[in-house]
Amino acid sequence: MTRVFNFSAGPAALPEPVLREAAAEMLDWHGSGMSVMEMSHRGKEFMGILAETKALLVELLQIPSNYKVLFLQGGAIGQNAIIPMNLLRGRTSADYVHTGEWSKKSIEEAQKYCTVRVAATAEASQYTHVPKQSTWDIDPNAAYVHICANETIGGVEYHWTPDTGDIPLVADMSSNFLSKPVDVSRFGLIYGGAQKNIGPAGLTLVIVRDDLIGQALPITPSVFDYRVLADNDSMINTPPTYAIYIAGLVFKWIKAQGGLAAMAELNRRKAAVLYDYLDATGFYTSPIAKEDRSLMNVPFRLPDPKLDAEFLKGAEARGMVQLKGHRVVGGMRASIYNAVPVEAVQALVAYMKEFEAARG
Amino acid sequence: MTRVFNFSAGPAALPEPVLREAAAEMLDWHGSGMSVMEMSHRGKEFMGILAETKALLVELLQIPSNYKVLFLQGGAIGQNAIIPMNLLRGRTSADYVHTGEWSKKSIEEAQKYCTVRVAATAEASQYTHVPKQSTWDIDPNAAYVHICANETIGGVEYHWTPDTGDIPLVADMSSNFLSKPVDVSRFGLIYGGAQKNIGPAGLTLVIVRDDLIGQALPITPSVFDYRVLADNDSMINTPPTYAIYIAGLVFKWIKAQGGLAAMAELNRRKAAVLYDYLDATGFYTSPIAKEDRSLMNVPFRLPDPKLDAEFLKGAEARGMVQLKGHRVVGGMRASIYNAVPVEAVQALVAYMKEFEAARG
Repeated sequence: MTRVFNFSAGPAALPEPVLREAAAEMLDWHGSGMSVMEMSHRGKEFMGILAETKALLVELLQIPSNYKVLFLQGGAIGQNAIIPMNLLRGRTSADYVHTGEWSKKSIEEAQKYCTVRVAATAEASQYTHVPKQSTWDIDPNAAYVHICANETIGGVEYHWTPDTGDIPLVADMSSNFLSKPVDVSRFGLIYGGAQKNIGPAGLTLVIVRDDLIGQALPITPSVFDYRVLADNDSMINTPPTYAIYIAGLVFKWIKAQGGLAAMAELNRRKAAVLYDYLDATGFYTSPIAKEDRSLMNVPFRLPDPKLDAEFLKGAEARGMVQLKGHRVVGGMRASIYNAVPVEAVQALVAYMKEFEAARG
Repeated sequence: MTRVFNFSAGPAALPEPVLREAAAEMLDWHGSGMSVMEMSHRGKEFMGILAETKALLVELLQIPSNYKVLFLQGGAIGQNAIIPMNLLRGRTSADYVHTGEWSKKSIEEAQKYCTVRVAATAEASQYTHVPKQSTWDIDPNAAYVHICANETIGGVEYHWTPDTGDIPLVADMSSNFLSKPVDVSRFGLIYGGAQKNIGPAGLTLVIVRDDLIGQALPITPSVFDYRVLADNDSMINTPPTYAIYIAGLVFKWIKAQGGLAAMAELNRRKAAVLYDYLDATGFYTSPIAKEDRSLMNVPFRLPDPKLDAEFLKGAEARGMVQLKGHRVVGGMRASIYNAVPVEAVQALVAYMKEFEAARG
């Protein structure tokens, strides 16, 4: 067995010790005689797994007690509809900050349920920066202000937390969840798909301040009504039990690495290896404003798109996969989530230098 | 490692060879150097898994070409909302047949989106039978007629397919999916959560006739619009990739056993072991009308509920778990899905006899 260096934007690399533990426990979890996949979600074994997973997340993010932690299905794109369904609270409009492809999707979906105001946009820079807060035009009647904390496709990340006063701040953290400490109390709601830093696709996390829930639109499906979910501890129906179990193993792994402060330090170090080289080379280019560069997704371009296929082929031959950029922006993209080791980034930069020397 | 006999109603027992293969491939699927959990859903490896899984399902159920096979999230309870959102097609009401707890949930949820008419109900027998078709009062203007093909809690199953004429028949097959051959062409839509006969919780299957889709209500979330899903081959967002992979392994296992005809034969044989004994004993009772007994979920009662705890304790001591009935109906329930071997049912009956001899 040879493991590759996996730069996928998601579903993405998971910590190898997590996969080893999952494989070892596949037929018999802790002497239960069952796989976690085979357990009733209301049995004592899975109830224990769920409680531990939730407690670990609360500990890692230091989630205040007035927040509900919900495990859902449907992904972040599902939440793009479910958030307005739940958070409009009698209001008719919401503010969105447009920083790229993922904010665009959120904006389009929310328009089914309310008036969407774009409070700020990075359009002028072709979505290569985060609009400074001084340029934001927030509607005092907005139900909430929505941001995408990290644009997976564009490679733009907030390295600061917006101040939206009394208006709840809602953040899609799908691709930088658990990559660094976050002051949850600054947010009304944080959400994300699991398939980057948390676990398998099919699990969605929502952390929501409890005063914001309980006023869902009448058309909200019960399985997506935050109040119903909170009252049933995310068990209004069968939750994605195996994905929750894997998330729990990932949370334990993060804790063992030193928690989110250690993750942030590791992620800064990894990203620096790549960005330092991108700043030094005249061969590859990075279009993103330096202060807004994502530490999770690093897009870069070769001097000529005609070289892309050869670059990718050489990378694959060296065991580095899933480096192709999203079709919307083209070029390359290295996603370097928590579970991607520094050795992977070092190997990538070594190969980039080699390729530059041969083709530059 | 000792595996138990697992009678859980769901999530439920999976075939041991499937779990063994999943464990063996956990760190490196087919030489890819990645776990299936770590693969981009748009990469060639996972696209291959998805295509093969879908093709296997089409083959097993002989799904006609004018049906779409969709892989979703949100469970059958999610579908209780998503079905009216998609299938009302300008109509304002739908007919439901009430056969127990799961139909009741479907009825309650659909009332958010349309007028619900109960075309037939088993209330008079306390939901211990399926109402004969001659008693059904179908509204010719109904958008569809909804049935629960197998009531997991009550233990009542349709052993015939209703004829609803030109009105599309919609069936929740969560708990008897793939347990027997089904003539898909008799249905407008078949749906089910995966966590009984298919795979891990968090995957929902929908098989829908293509002329019924494309008229979703404007409030339908994009990820649950069947037209959008069909046009994007279930990839409007990241699907539950690992659950789909496990489902594919289960489909392969079913095929290797001889397909759905063989499954039906095996399931009849297993259920007969239990029902024959229930008919012979004067100790345990089964409340369900003989012709409507479920081959998947077999509820039974001891002569005195005070004996329940002792019965369950003795079962656990013999490696037989998750036999407690649902709190709504009480008593015991043995769920004997595809992956539960005949040896499990034989062991259960042997224990029931032993308990009867000691206590009867």
